[in-house]
Amino acid sequence: MPPHHPTTVYLSAPDMVRLVRRKGLSACIAGVAERIEREFLRWHDFDKSARLACHSAVGVIELMPIADASQFAFKYVNGHPGNHRHGLPTVMAFGVLADVATGTPCLLSELTLTTAIRTAAMSALAARKLARPGSRSMALIGNGAQSEFQALAFRDGVGVRELRLFDTDPRASAKLAANLAGQGLELRLCASIAEAVRGADIVTTVTADKSNATILTPEMIEPGMHLNAVGGDCPGKTELHRGVLEAATVFVEYEPQTRIEGDIQQLPADFAVTEFWQVLAGTHPGRSHAAEVTVFDSVGFALEDYAALAFMRDTAAELGIGETIELVPHSPDPKDLFGILRDAPLRGATSAAAVADRGMRLRAAA
Amino acid sequence: MPPHHPTTVYLSAPDMVRLVRRKGLSACIAGVAERIEREFLRWHDFDKSARLACHSAVGVIELMPIADASQFAFKYVNGHPGNHRHGLPTVMAFGVLADVATGTPCLLSELTLTTAIRTAAMSALAARKLARPGSRSMALIGNGAQSEFQALAFRDGVGVRELRLFDTDPRASAKLAANLAGQGLELRLCASIAEAVRGADIVTTVTADKSNATILTPEMIEPGMHLNAVGGDCPGKTELHRGVLEAATVFVEYEPQTRIEGDIQQLPADFAVTEFWQVLAGTHPGRSHAAEVTVFDSVGFALEDYAALAFMRDTAAELGIGETIELVPHSPDPKDLFGILRDAPLRGATSAAAVADRGMRLRAAA
Repeated sequence: MPPHHPTTVYLSAPDMVRLVRRKGLSACIAGVAERIEREFLRWHDFDKSARLACHSAVGVIELMPIADASQFAFKYVNGHPGNHRHGLPTVMAFGVLADVATGTPCLLSELTLTTAIRTAAMSALAARKLARPGSRSMALIGNGAQSEFQALAFRDGVGVRELRLFDTDPRASAKLAANLAGQGLELRLCASIAEAVRGADIVTTVTADKSNATILTPEMIEPGMHLNAVGGDCPGKTELHRGVLEAATVFVEYEPQTRIEGDIQQLPADFAVTEFWQVLAGTHPGRSHAAEVTVFDSVGFALEDYAALAFMRDTAAELGIGETIELVPHSPDPKDLFGILRDAPLRGATSAAAVADRGMRLRAAA
Repeated sequence: MPPHHPTTVYLSAPDMVRLVRRKGLSACIAGVAERIEREFLRWHDFDKSARLACHSAVGVIELMPIADASQFAFKYVNGHPGNHRHGLPTVMAFGVLADVATGTPCLLSELTLTTAIRTAAMSALAARKLARPGSRSMALIGNGAQSEFQALAFRDGVGVRELRLFDTDPRASAKLAANLAGQGLELRLCASIAEAVRGADIVTTVTADKSNATILTPEMIEPGMHLNAVGGDCPGKTELHRGVLEAATVFVEYEPQTRIEGDIQQLPADFAVTEFWQVLAGTHPGRSHAAEVTVFDSVGFALEDYAALAFMRDTAAELGIGETIELVPHSPDPKDLFGILRDAPLRGATSAAAVADRGMRLRAAA
């Protein structure tokens, strides 16, 4: 068999910026949402596990693997709420798609920008199924790096037209408002969480603090609201008062992981939740009446990254973006790894037959 | 705080070939062995876990994370014994070193070549402590991609001068013999495992078949032998007959992982084994007498990759090898991820104050 060089496509962060600019951010969010829906509908095809988290006093580093019969994917992602003090992003990520049949890492991609896109796509997909039909207004609590993506995903995917913004850092809200100017959204900067939440159809919480915060308390919640709780995604990092959860119907991505990381970590292990794929598959009705309060307790699941990596791979190929890197050595003979170290240029003589000849002479001499 | 761009050094496979050629393979193996010893001596500083394995009918893909207070490391590695039929290597790997304080992925490196180096370094380090002093002869069963590295590590680190080679594929043995010609080793190609093992001081098994093989059976084992069992490293993939283990003193890397993956997977969970770091630390005597049979049931542990990544990072810096890649976006404002998508060149106006100005005007207008 002639050598078949393992090739890896690399999408750098600047490549991804080019890709998203050329494809359009809205098209990327919609494309990833469609892909997430497609993958969630074949939930049982995947070998799933809760992500592997390495916690320190200042943050977390996680590996998120998942596989089906043909592809293995994983994401590396950190969460360091204090990073802005060093001028660094809170969340940085990259990921890989590999071929299950051979183990070849086929795609290495930035996922910092992509994570913001896939999280927003997932949130909007869930809200499209769980929020009251005709939802138009959304409170957006936490106006950091992910907030623009959430806003646009809900505008395009759910029909939200009015946003009420709140952040403990007014500069963050101002940045968000500036970035969303001219995007067909009515914006209101609010002085408190309660003010932002009052009368909203949907409430999205996407805060970064690594603490058991109570961004939303029971008295703020109105009948029929849909809560999109994105920021409570780590042991010890929650956003909702437990009373909010107790009075609501709670949907999660992958229950074993959300029990550890989600807002429901505050509740007993037998508190009833529904995995969202069941709503897509039609085995759970989702929202049952207009006054029901629904919560999507989102922590981010590897299958969303699998979907996002696949979308980005296909889009990069379509647009001719990315480069091929030699992450794995190209050896003329895969059984002769040592051969790549020889100083002389690699010879035809490393063919099995020629090597066998040399070897046999040596054996005769021994 | 001005933005502090997260930078990642990338060592490609060709970079690693250059590095190993310039530093010298022996120096790399010795350097990695020294680094492994140093890290194993601070065993309790590390947050350890059994690796995460994704099995298919034809192979396995694994993620191997580990961290101490300052660095997080992981390796991606596959094992596909049938890959040579597609002209691909059995084992392909890459890995990352990241900063625990910020989550920045600081180094992305090929680890295919490096895995062969670190596995050989680990084997020789264990044999230096566990084999009989003055061991000179070694049987090398399995003459594939890793075998040259094992041979040279035992020559340099243990003092082996005579090798007996066996592989079910005679071309593999011939390739190994050709590659080792002129390296100060006396080589003998053997017609059977038994012939190779007879009278050897050390027996190294480094076969690739994913099956419960019995490469070594009790009647082959002689008093005082040290067995370096490298290839049994997956559930359902073993090399030693259980009787060989039962009659020996068994050392492992990280017990929870080896119970699942090592040759000891055949034995009850209470079969006594010793973690090798204890021998280095002096809390276990290692070999107790000349007639004792010792087994290093090696499966490959994340701490060895941590050590290898650190050695390669330092050596690359010393030799000026590698390049800086933009795996994580460089944003003028880490809280403004959306800002990197703006079509216009990134402006000075994205400073927090300027954005706040724009935002406040917008608020007043709302």
